[in-house]
Amino acid sequence: MTELWNRETFLGKLKAVGMNRYHDKHPFHKHMNSGKLTPDQVRGWVANRFYYQRNIPIKDAAIISNCPVREVRRIWLHRISDHDGLKEGEGGIENWLKLGEATGLTREELLSGKGLLPKAKAAVDSYVHFARTKPWPIAVSSSLTELFAPDLMKERILAFEKYYTWVKPSGLEYFKSRVTQAKTDSDQGLELTFTYCNTAELQEEAVKALNFKCGLLWDLLDAMAEAYGGGEA
Amino acid sequence: MTELWNRETFLGKLKAVGMNRYHDKHPFHKHMNSGKLTPDQVRGWVANRFYYQRNIPIKDAAIISNCPVREVRRIWLHRISDHDGLKEGEGGIENWLKLGEATGLTREELLSGKGLLPKAKAAVDSYVHFARTKPWPIAVSSSLTELFAPDLMKERILAFEKYYTWVKPSGLEYFKSRVTQAKTDSDQGLELTFTYCNTAELQEEAVKALNFKCGLLWDLLDAMAEAYGGGEA
Repeated sequence: MTELWNRETFLGKLKAVGMNRYHDKHPFHKHMNSGKLTPDQVRGWVANRFYYQRNIPIKDAAIISNCPVREVRRIWLHRISDHDGLKEGEGGIENWLKLGEATGLTREELLSGKGLLPKAKAAVDSYVHFARTKPWPIAVSSSLTELFAPDLMKERILAFEKYYTWVKPSGLEYFKSRVTQAKTDSDQGLELTFTYCNTAELQEEAVKALNFKCGLLWDLLDAMAEAYGGGEA
Repeated sequence: MTELWNRETFLGKLKAVGMNRYHDKHPFHKHMNSGKLTPDQVRGWVANRFYYQRNIPIKDAAIISNCPVREVRRIWLHRISDHDGLKEGEGGIENWLKLGEATGLTREELLSGKGLLPKAKAAVDSYVHFARTKPWPIAVSSSLTELFAPDLMKERILAFEKYYTWVKPSGLEYFKSRVTQAKTDSDQGLELTFTYCNTAELQEEAVKALNFKCGLLWDLLDAMAEAYGGGEA
């Protein structure tokens, strides 16, 4: 029988996944943050990543629907309204639509899925399927890419302000809001992972889940690099 | 090709389901509202119905997770926090636990599922499965028993205050809160049903869904009547 990792070891394993596989290391993303993407490549990224964004509340509702623990559902619930907004004109999906507009795409184009690459769609759909079908503590742990998101968001904001001055500053609201939201989310996600991935098997599954999540974010960027270029190492 | 019903006809069909099949017509329920249940029968009802109550947020999260329309998810979301509460000590499930305590059950008994009848469990599980697997507008329409709930709640409050004076009044908070909540919920559910059950086929499915929902509420009471008596017509 395998022994349980203590929190420090468990956290170390989770962080190691991010160090090796988080999508900030993808050539397309490195090119984005060093100002090397063309406007068309930026728009391609925005349009495809939008499919990921719009599926976040669907994924989080699946986790809530699989969770019999009232206290956990209560903790997880704000994620849905963070992205959907509490009313028209609010929320992360709305902010992403504004990012699209700031890059010259219309919200109708984004909402219609125009330009969505099949490989990008498949990557996102696999994530929703994962959340629907895996035990909820494992689906929760797959969200822990949020551990690595705040730093990336800060870097991305600087890159957009420096290199992509043709993008209207109003478009950067999503990135700005996620700096603090992702910190809250990862604190909560981590605490739930520590508490409910409480067997050696579940701990290993949690690390695998984070690996899977990093993999699909990577696949998203692969899809874009293949279609639009900008993925040279 | 079948013609679409107008709103009035559609509403009439939905209301007819309630007139014929809503569980207020079940002998066990009639006995409850006319003061004929013994304390043990009341406790049996509370314990088994609790399994229904605790599954409501699970069911509603499934609907949200199946719904690609942000505006609809926003409308539906409060149902989860209505039942789970926004914090410890709040919400419909908590109020039902208080009802249990007011009848002499402990919250540990309720949470452990002690006394849950297999047939009652199966009825509730079939409802969650329905919400997970049916198109979301159909799952929404299955919630329209809420059209008939406020009247029943008012009647139930009066019955408890009159006949079951051994139940502490603090236990009746759930019924009281549902008089107004169920009205809001059914207004929203009806509007969504009218808007999104927008083919003849979906309209018919919606009526069938409400019929199915009435059926499982009926089955819940059948389970209790069989186990505890109190179901003689």
